[in-house]
Amino acid sequence: MSEAKRSDLFAVVNRQRACREFADTPVRDADLAPLLEAATHAPSAENKQPWEFVIVRDAATRAAIGELTRQAWELHGRAFSEQRLTPELLAEVDKGATSGIAGAPVHVVVCADIDRGLEATVGSSIFPAIQNLLLAATAVGLGSALTTLTTAFSAELRELLSLPAHVVPVAVVPVGYPAHELGRPRREPFAEHTHREQYGKAW
Amino acid sequence: MSEAKRSDLFAVVNRQRACREFADTPVRDADLAPLLEAATHAPSAENKQPWEFVIVRDAATRAAIGELTRQAWELHGRAFSEQRLTPELLAEVDKGATSGIAGAPVHVVVCADIDRGLEATVGSSIFPAIQNLLLAATAVGLGSALTTLTTAFSAELRELLSLPAHVVPVAVVPVGYPAHELGRPRREPFAEHTHREQYGKAW
Repeated sequence: MSEAKRSDLFAVVNRQRACREFADTPVRDADLAPLLEAATHAPSAENKQPWEFVIVRDAATRAAIGELTRQAWELHGRAFSEQRLTPELLAEVDKGATSGIAGAPVHVVVCADIDRGLEATVGSSIFPAIQNLLLAATAVGLGSALTTLTTAFSAELRELLSLPAHVVPVAVVPVGYPAHELGRPRREPFAEHTHREQYGKAW
Repeated sequence: MSEAKRSDLFAVVNRQRACREFADTPVRDADLAPLLEAATHAPSAENKQPWEFVIVRDAATRAAIGELTRQAWELHGRAFSEQRLTPELLAEVDKGATSGIAGAPVHVVVCADIDRGLEATVGSSIFPAIQNLLLAATAVGLGSALTTLTTAFSAELRELLSLPAHVVPVAVVPVGYPAHELGRPRREPFAEHTHREQYGKAW
């Protein structure tokens, strides 16, 4: 595939999916810059750009974040999700939460500054930026995933990363080169969830 | 600019910004399909894909949504934002909320099915899809904006669109061809909001 085709918006969107197993290949600052640059071009409520990114490479900190993720999954996530996910997806998430995410060479901890932006608009102001980051990662061949599980331990994350009270952790995005090629995302056709004029009127 | 360059992920990300004034040019179903297709490729918690899109073209319904937006802005938004926005942005949002959004030929009302996905994960599961939709619109030359103001009147939106109790309106995205060329988004450099290992350590 040509470089232009690989980074076409629609090609990237169709290819983007969660990566939960990473190669040891290092990720340099210069590799991360376009991801962070893309993230900051997302819209935000009142254009307040309330995002703060903590880039974690330190092995001990990543291990600690990995451990919090594992605990969140084992205490709250797995038993709940067992009833709700296919066995394949459950196994993939299980592996990611217990070891894969910790193995990423970089953790981007995405936070919201609730002095700069309003707390009520954290979701609408931070997740679009994260989506830009995931797409940019996909475009350059990096793997990534949107995980919010770890934020169940926000007090512990705060301490690990010296976050002040007005900076709230929203997600941990592991970034690294994928350990193996990722398949296409599994999605239902949009027409099944699109309605004409009123809910329930078929597209 | 060549077609390939125009739809390059990074070019689209850098170009995407809120459009609040639309031309009368009609938007066909075929123009909307790639936007909705892109939206449904976003990640969601447990891959539950809880999105539901109501595509509104009916003039009376759009006028009603426009009126709710105007009321939300005049009752809650404007007085609050006056202290917080630059005069230029305030004027732009004011015009959008009072007439521009209503003038878009299509309103995509993005909802979350909280039977399918968990209510606690609505933000992380719906805003990435909306961001994909905005980027896809930008790629094909359509204007759009992420607006959540109208959801202050969720009971009224429910009635207008026959939304059942388990389907929650999250945002109204006006879509149409821009009335005039949009400038670049105004953003602070990412390095100002990026930290190395711990909050406060410069990038």
